[in-house]
Amino acid sequence: MIVDCAHYKDGARQHEGPMELEDAAAQAGSGGEFVWIGMHEPEPGDLERLQKLFGLHELAIEDAARAHQRPKIEDYDDGYFIVLRTAHYHQEEEIVHFGEIHVFIGPGYVITVRHGPGSELATARQRLEARPDLLKMGAAAALWAILDKVVDDYLPVVDGIEDDIEEVETDVFDDDVAAPTARIYKLKREVIEFHRAVWPLLSPLDALERGGNARVPDELRRFFRDVHDHAQRVDEQVTSQRELLTSVLEANLALVSVNQNEVIKRISSYAAIIALPTFIASVYGMNFEDMPELESPVGYPIALAVMALCIIGLFFFFRRVRWL
Amino acid sequence: MIVDCAHYKDGARQHEGPMELEDAAAQAGSGGEFVWIGMHEPEPGDLERLQKLFGLHELAIEDAARAHQRPKIEDYDDGYFIVLRTAHYHQEEEIVHFGEIHVFIGPGYVITVRHGPGSELATARQRLEARPDLLKMGAAAALWAILDKVVDDYLPVVDGIEDDIEEVETDVFDDDVAAPTARIYKLKREVIEFHRAVWPLLSPLDALERGGNARVPDELRRFFRDVHDHAQRVDEQVTSQRELLTSVLEANLALVSVNQNEVIKRISSYAAIIALPTFIASVYGMNFEDMPELESPVGYPIALAVMALCIIGLFFFFRRVRWL
Amino acid sequence: MIVDCAHYKDGARQHEGPMELEDAAAQAGSGGEFVWIGMHEPEPGDLERLQKLFGLHELAIEDAARAHQRPKIEDYDDGYFIVLRTAHYHQEEEIVHFGEIHVFIGPGYVITVRHGPGSELATARQRLEARPDLLKMGAAAALWAILDKVVDDYLPVVDGIEDDIEEVETDVFDDDVAAPTARIYKLKREVIEFHRAVWPLLSPLDALERGGNARVPDELRRFFRDVHDHAQRVDEQVTSQRELLTSVLEANLALVSVNQNEVIKRISSYAAIIALPTFIASVYGMNFEDMPELESPVGYPIALAVMALCIIGLFFFFRRVRWL
Amino acid sequence: MIVDCAHYKDGARQHEGPMELEDAAAQAGSGGEFVWIGMHEPEPGDLERLQKLFGLHELAIEDAARAHQRPKIEDYDDGYFIVLRTAHYHQEEEIVHFGEIHVFIGPGYVITVRHGPGSELATARQRLEARPDLLKMGAAAALWAILDKVVDDYLPVVDGIEDDIEEVETDVFDDDVAAPTARIYKLKREVIEFHRAVWPLLSPLDALERGGNARVPDELRRFFRDVHDHAQRVDEQVTSQRELLTSVLEANLALVSVNQNEVIKRISSYAAIIALPTFIASVYGMNFEDMPELESPVGYPIALAVMALCIIGLFFFFRRVRWL
Amino acid sequence: MIVDCAHYKDGARQHEGPMELEDAAAQAGSGGEFVWIGMHEPEPGDLERLQKLFGLHELAIEDAARAHQRPKIEDYDDGYFIVLRTAHYHQEEEIVHFGEIHVFIGPGYVITVRHGPGSELATARQRLEARPDLLKMGAAAALWAILDKVVDDYLPVVDGIEDDIEEVETDVFDDDVAAPTARIYKLKREVIEFHRAVWPLLSPLDALERGGNARVPDELRRFFRDVHDHAQRVDEQVTSQRELLTSVLEANLALVSVNQNEVIKRISSYAAIIALPTFIASVYGMNFEDMPELESPVGYPIALAVMALCIIGLFFFFRRVRWL
Repeated sequence: MIVDCAHYKDGARQHEGPMELEDAAAQAGSGGEFVWIGMHEPEPGDLERLQKLFGLHELAIEDAARAHQRPKIEDYDDGYFIVLRTAHYHQEEEIVHFGEIHVFIGPGYVITVRHGPGSELATARQRLEARPDLLKMGAAAALWAILDKVVDDYLPVVDGIEDDIEEVETDVFDDDVAAPTARIYKLKREVIEFHRAVWPLLSPLDALERGGNARVPDELRRFFRDVHDHAQRVDEQVTSQRELLTSVLEANLALVSVNQNEVIKRISSYAAIIALPTFIASVYGMNFEDMPELESPVGYPIALAVMALCIIGLFFFFRRVRWL
Repeated sequence: MIVDCAHYKDGARQHEGPMELEDAAAQAGSGGEFVWIGMHEPEPGDLERLQKLFGLHELAIEDAARAHQRPKIEDYDDGYFIVLRTAHYHQEEEIVHFGEIHVFIGPGYVITVRHGPGSELATARQRLEARPDLLKMGAAAALWAILDKVVDDYLPVVDGIEDDIEEVETDVFDDDVAAPTARIYKLKREVIEFHRAVWPLLSPLDALERGGNARVPDELRRFFRDVHDHAQRVDEQVTSQRELLTSVLEANLALVSVNQNEVIKRISSYAAIIALPTFIASVYGMNFEDMPELESPVGYPIALAVMALCIIGLFFFFRRVRWL
Repeated sequence: MIVDCAHYKDGARQHEGPMELEDAAAQAGSGGEFVWIGMHEPEPGDLERLQKLFGLHELAIEDAARAHQRPKIEDYDDGYFIVLRTAHYHQEEEIVHFGEIHVFIGPGYVITVRHGPGSELATARQRLEARPDLLKMGAAAALWAILDKVVDDYLPVVDGIEDDIEEVETDVFDDDVAAPTARIYKLKREVIEFHRAVWPLLSPLDALERGGNARVPDELRRFFRDVHDHAQRVDEQVTSQRELLTSVLEANLALVSVNQNEVIKRISSYAAIIALPTFIASVYGMNFEDMPELESPVGYPIALAVMALCIIGLFFFFRRVRWL
Repeated sequence: MIVDCAHYKDGARQHEGPMELEDAAAQAGSGGEFVWIGMHEPEPGDLERLQKLFGLHELAIEDAARAHQRPKIEDYDDGYFIVLRTAHYHQEEEIVHFGEIHVFIGPGYVITVRHGPGSELATARQRLEARPDLLKMGAAAALWAILDKVVDDYLPVVDGIEDDIEEVETDVFDDDVAAPTARIYKLKREVIEFHRAVWPLLSPLDALERGGNARVPDELRRFFRDVHDHAQRVDEQVTSQRELLTSVLEANLALVSVNQNEVIKRISSYAAIIALPTFIASVYGMNFEDMPELESPVGYPIALAVMALCIIGLFFFFRRVRWL
Repeated sequence: MIVDCAHYKDGARQHEGPMELEDAAAQAGSGGEFVWIGMHEPEPGDLERLQKLFGLHELAIEDAARAHQRPKIEDYDDGYFIVLRTAHYHQEEEIVHFGEIHVFIGPGYVITVRHGPGSELATARQRLEARPDLLKMGAAAALWAILDKVVDDYLPVVDGIEDDIEEVETDVFDDDVAAPTARIYKLKREVIEFHRAVWPLLSPLDALERGGNARVPDELRRFFRDVHDHAQRVDEQVTSQRELLTSVLEANLALVSVNQNEVIKRISSYAAIIALPTFIASVYGMNFEDMPELESPVGYPIALAVMALCIIGLFFFFRRVRWL
């Protein structure tokens, strides 16, 4: 499905509604003039048309047809093919939903293909349209706008995970809450998956930042550096979160053991409290003929009293040694 | 055993059935003309004949005679010697079966030697024969077809392992299923082994992608990059799986401890529920002469009632504190 | 809020009180002459004024407006934009408080923007003013003074954490103190966070030290090396602390288990001590008609004596095998 | 002790028995002509004589006099000094025995010094003597023969460890065998030690393979690459084994806990099975005057039957919940 | 405190006793002529005098005044400033005592400043004085002598730790010795700390070895390589020890759990052995009127016999299943 298709020249969009693909291909200019075609979940025919119109490489088209690609920035002679994974954190399920954006960029054209849910590119387009100075720099500026949008959308994901880690920490160290092992594990799974979405981007972003590529104007390189910086920040935080979750899991294990210790001590205390008077009762349940206590009229009350004393004494003893 | 032996020229196979080795050696051309000899589990004589006919290096022949080589791409003056490990996931046993493919590639010839089960190369050959544009580029195209086939066959392996990891996760966090420690360990073993098959390929694939080697036409380098990208994707996923399995094992350990805690609490509750009335019975089993309760006609029913109350009271108490 | 704004020339401050921003901009010289503007928690307008007066890059201004940036040293054509995280250890809460300092440095000007609490820069300024030889080298000297101050303020943080780790170690190996799992975890969290503040600085500091940048005078490069050396020392110590805390957590877990073993042994000993005489009492509570011991007048005393012997004997037995 | 000392020229040994050291030194030629002196556990005087005769560097001599050197390939102006650790796996004790081989190689001479048990070099010498084409290339060929022999002798070590790891895995997951913690640990120790013998060789072997050293003929470099490849294979397998053993240890820990759970459940079941009828017996041991059941002639048989029912019922109940 | 101050020329010490600092400064020559000043715990004035006499850099002086520097080799225009951490293993306390040596080296002078206990440099000086050939090479030879001494003194430390690790292993796997968790942890702490002393030296030692620095004569570079090799050996062993100690801690944890299992089984066996006869006694303590066994004269002996049989039978049963 073609979402939008616009022609940009001299830093401004040349018309309102979307154009036809064929018109766009005809106008793909050079320098600051370019067309930006946005698609969502393309049908097979769409990509073939694009391939013919813009002379895209068959391997890039093959990748773009299938989702679940690895994030990458591939350099072709006359342009780039870029795969980005978009991320959205679903706070309630504590799951990161991933989408994908594939970008073809070449002389005078930018083609974006979105798979699955994920970052809307309309806002990236609007943001760029509001900046004629950048728009003038051509297709590379659109690439920046897309990268910036995708990477900025990572920030709420890390922040959401950060919040959940803090909740998990509170739970782990709170005696009244059951040990949230499954939750910790699931968060770790999301963090590992998220790392796989961000990490492969760092090295090609670094290459874009350092330039050495004539297609990216020097002034734009700082904007790519900005994106690189944000991606690095996300990646460093994700790395910390991974380590934190490992530590939480270990701390959790230690606390479960400590807790077991407490339980065993408490149980044993009560067992001792009841075992001693039971023993006393057994003694006076013996059938010896000659047991003077049995005949004494105060025997029974005294026995009861001794038993009560044992119970009370042991209770306070275990209190004092903090087993109860 | 010689599986197939064909002569390719101008992007097309020159004949239908397999040729004799000697004819093939005579036709090993240059540029886009080449012969592709496919063998399976070669007998010693086969390799010697090849060595004489194509002037292969003795060290490469030595390696090709024995399976269990390390994956590698070795550069000889006039060609490459490549060792690949093929992988096939046996879903029921949860075991990765590894085979090996050794490739000799030189001016005008490609020789593939398969050991053990594993990726059939016939499909790679068919795929290449259907692409005259690539076939024209000569022996390097055949190398690409083989690498592409082997690496693409890794994908179902990672996916199969991924599915099993998900099953294991479900089991770990399901209270009713026994802790699948052995299964987790065995999956981890397969993942470690699989990593050893994929990882050593990354660096030479990167070298092929970057080129700097006159024998690989520029246009083909993109196809090698595609293979490299897929291999990297597999390797990154394998790395994540390794980390996930480590975490699952830790989570499993924590859950076993938590489960033990639950068991101890439940057991202790029942022990307490029975210990208290037993103690009461012991008291009235004492033989004191003067125990007024014993003489009362309602003594026995009241005693029974008290015991029943103890049992019921303790039961609901332990329910409330969630020990039962 | 503008904290201070001074004009330096020939290694000396040119006036006492703070200047107006506009005057400062007019005097931003070159070589050894420069103005140093210090701000704290700037209001939006402040940064805009600075941007106009000194021609700062919009991306740097955008970063400076928001705290929680990643530490970095960004190279712009005509200067640097630097983000530093200041750290202060709050010993009682065992929490590292982070602040941020953003530095714009260019030909003839240094602008520092502080966010949150953290290193006062007044001392850095004073220290520099006391060194005319360095002050003469211009804005880069001010950068050194700031870096030096921030990194030196890391030292009390690592030392404070070191002290707390030592306390934690004492607690872990002291039988009478409860296992400080939560404290270990919280320290580890601080160390991980602190590492994120220090580590990203190392690589750009290394670049400053190695020079290859005309804006930093050779003589100053040694001072940057000094800062780099201190930052590396902090980072190496932080890395060690991280590893130590992991080991402490593991040792703690082992000790909790050892402790549980001790508890179980002690409890079981007492259970055995009471179970044996209880059994003896049960035997003599049997109602057989013909039990000769029951009729003997010394039966009861002997039974009591045997029970006492059991208790005493078992007690010393368990003492000897160190279960008690 | 001098083991053998031979003069090689034009690819052939020039005489049968060993020569005198002095004669050997006189004949140390250049190009393809060289002498190969083999020593075992040298006495101090031996090394001094060699130093004088061949002008060896004092630091190399110092190292060669003492065993327990780090594996290395040191480049001197006129030759190499090489330290290799030989390994032999003693299957029964599950211990890797390490020996050492020190090699001096220079223009026209190869001197090998063996310490401790370990790879016999006689077979390396024989293998080389059987290859006049390599022998012609001079001293570097002897170096290859030695490296090849030492690295090939690593293979049975990794294979032996692999077998033992598989045995250990079987034991860990077999319920009837005690947890082999000590064995796992000892295997890990051997693997760590073995890694230290192999790993330091990889980087200098890589340097030899890449050449850039005039003393190694180009044709030989492929033979060094072959050795490098084998060493890498050993190192990669050792790395996997290290990770496997870590996982086995963790799995073992989890299984010990699972096993403890099982034990606790079984014990508690039996405790419950006996506690309930004991309680019933206590009830009818009470001395109330008015307990109608006691007077009934079927009271006793019914009581026994109820107890038996309790025992049987609980037994099957615990069977069903899989505690027994 | 000035320990020694000597003037070396033409490979020989020029006088016996120590010289005055001022005389030394006057004689600081070039080439092979140099003075070596040795200080211990300098007073502030000492360093100032040196700074003036030899024109040392203020940053180096600042570092030298304070101990607890990071090991480093800093290159100044006209010399080096070196910080080394000396190590001494106190076997009884199992603690590594660290000292520090700061070295200023420049044209014609070597100044060593020792802090704390640690490697005596007198032996390094003597060793150098006994080697006129090295002494002739000037100040760099003194640097070698110092580095060699410090690094050689690391060897007994690693060996001492190695011995203690072996003791700890014996303890861990010995059933009769309490689990030495605290000792393992403390050894690990020392190893981590020791790593911090050795590791930062490796990279600058490598730089010295590779040369590219005109101040180090080529012949001496081999001696620096020797030191580098020893330092690497120490570092590799320390790395292995770190990994070993981690594994020991894990093995220890597993063994504690295994041990707990054993204890629980043994305790439960005895509990069962006593519970069964207690139950039998309870049965015959019941007060039913019509219990034929009670009236039989052999009832009591048979009951006792049955109880004894239960005890003996259970005992041997638990023996057989290895719970006792």
